[in-house]
Amino acid sequence: MDSLHKGWFTEFSPDDLEKIKNTGNGQDKQLRSDGQEMGGAWPGQAFSLQVQEVLFHEKSQYQDVLVFKSETYGNVLVLDGIIQCTERDEFSYQEMLAHLPLFAHKDPKKVLIIGGGDGGILREVLKHKAVEKVTMCEIDQMVIDVSKKFLPHMSHGFSDPKLDLYVGDGFEFLKNHKNEFDVIITDSSDPVGPAESLFGESYYELLRDALNDTGILSSQGESFWLHLPLLQHLIAFNRRLFSKVQYASSPVSTYPSGSMGYLICGKQDHDLSVPARILDSAALKEMKLRYYNSEIHRAAFVLPQFVKEAFE
Amino acid sequence: MDSLHKGWFTEFSPDDLEKIKNTGNGQDKQLRSDGQEMGGAWPGQAFSLQVQEVLFHEKSQYQDVLVFKSETYGNVLVLDGIIQCTERDEFSYQEMLAHLPLFAHKDPKKVLIIGGGDGGILREVLKHKAVEKVTMCEIDQMVIDVSKKFLPHMSHGFSDPKLDLYVGDGFEFLKNHKNEFDVIITDSSDPVGPAESLFGESYYELLRDALNDTGILSSQGESFWLHLPLLQHLIAFNRRLFSKVQYASSPVSTYPSGSMGYLICGKQDHDLSVPARILDSAALKEMKLRYYNSEIHRAAFVLPQFVKEAFE
Repeated sequence: MDSLHKGWFTEFSPDDLEKIKNTGNGQDKQLRSDGQEMGGAWPGQAFSLQVQEVLFHEKSQYQDVLVFKSETYGNVLVLDGIIQCTERDEFSYQEMLAHLPLFAHKDPKKVLIIGGGDGGILREVLKHKAVEKVTMCEIDQMVIDVSKKFLPHMSHGFSDPKLDLYVGDGFEFLKNHKNEFDVIITDSSDPVGPAESLFGESYYELLRDALNDTGILSSQGESFWLHLPLLQHLIAFNRRLFSKVQYASSPVSTYPSGSMGYLICGKQDHDLSVPARILDSAALKEMKLRYYNSEIHRAAFVLPQFVKEAFE
Repeated sequence: MDSLHKGWFTEFSPDDLEKIKNTGNGQDKQLRSDGQEMGGAWPGQAFSLQVQEVLFHEKSQYQDVLVFKSETYGNVLVLDGIIQCTERDEFSYQEMLAHLPLFAHKDPKKVLIIGGGDGGILREVLKHKAVEKVTMCEIDQMVIDVSKKFLPHMSHGFSDPKLDLYVGDGFEFLKNHKNEFDVIITDSSDPVGPAESLFGESYYELLRDALNDTGILSSQGESFWLHLPLLQHLIAFNRRLFSKVQYASSPVSTYPSGSMGYLICGKQDHDLSVPARILDSAALKEMKLRYYNSEIHRAAFVLPQFVKEAFE
């Protein structure tokens, strides 16, 4: 039993995968009684996609990079055994992580993307006419390269003249940028491996300082089904750093638990669940939006009762 | 490779499971180009839960009934290889399927449940003080029995004096009941096997006739990620039968794609996304609601742009 087995790719929780490699079945795990862990883990569950063809499989300097053509979800990018995107449902994540902060902002001109090497967030940011410059800081050149080759619908923004691309560590990059950006989007993998530093308080202090006075950030916010203790921790320290800390979610069928969250923080005290600009149907078409619309913006911030209570 | 393998249960799409039994890997499937099928299938993907102990596994007159204790999701009920509920996340589905029609109704006194043998919907219906009588028609006695034994938090309503329980076919039951119920909830499995007849136009004609003039129904509405053609079909014929046809959804992490939909139809032309009764925090606590609240009611009807366009 491994990630690639009899024509199927299986995404295990990172801790389970480690155990399965050692014992063959993932037994003997130590779990919290509610099955939740602080980090990016989801023990005891797994998701599989049927593989038509493995297109690329190499180790970069930072992680294991796999791209396969699936039977029913198009091409799939996998980093260290975890699905990052499939061509069939990536739009829900990319549109929400990008457009929630961008439409909450009155006039976003300068945008920074940390991570996002597959280009999906870049594609969405470039749809905003107000945006004059997009800076991207992605640590792994190999992710950019495989996306350009195997995910053309996600990566076409890499040739846009508005883009400044830095290949390097986002944490280090932020140390030299202060009071500069209208919106910063952190499109990271889970807090295991290269993205671990992007879930700590010192990272969010750097984000706050790199934003200008009206700045808004959004970050990949894991799943309320799987990571409630991690999210409570993230929200608690960000309430000390920002005037407004809010949380939204959307369904993304191929992420663990089928849901993805978005942590949205603002330096000003105004409600980020209210879009500053409303889209009519002509604008929706022009921007080729498939998930996001102005009503979804508001609704995404309405949380199930157990999540609302956990964040109070 | 089978549903139970090396300490894990794997839920395949019914068509894939058939193929896997025959060929060992699920190859040689005939798919629509977009990977979607009309029925309750989700080819090319699978979801697994780690098994601690198999508690029950028998064939009833209608289906294969499996209950296992999972490592991280509590006890799990599986019918014909498909997960029906886990103790960890069942509340999202049960609360939404029950409370969307019940709170859209001003004064629900007589409620009918078709299916729902695990008792989860019954538990939620009985939380409404207005409800005087709940009738349930479940086809499979074995489902009721295993739920009473292995899912006590879901099945305690079976001892309530307000319940009239019929073990039999819902379709046949409805033929003898006209103009009788305020709310009818169809809590069925997928349209493969015993629940197949519950997705056809003649079934919805019977539902319409069994509802009184202000009646509202809700039905298990599959997933917009997986079953858009089926949903378009259901919505189209119901628009001929009802004054109001609406669709909501919520995340349920262990259902295929992690999302579940709810088809809500009313005999009167008023907006069912607006709750007729608003819950304050004391009422939420008294009703032990973990997913539903009055804001979630409205938000659940706000659909992603691609779904909204598909249903127009």
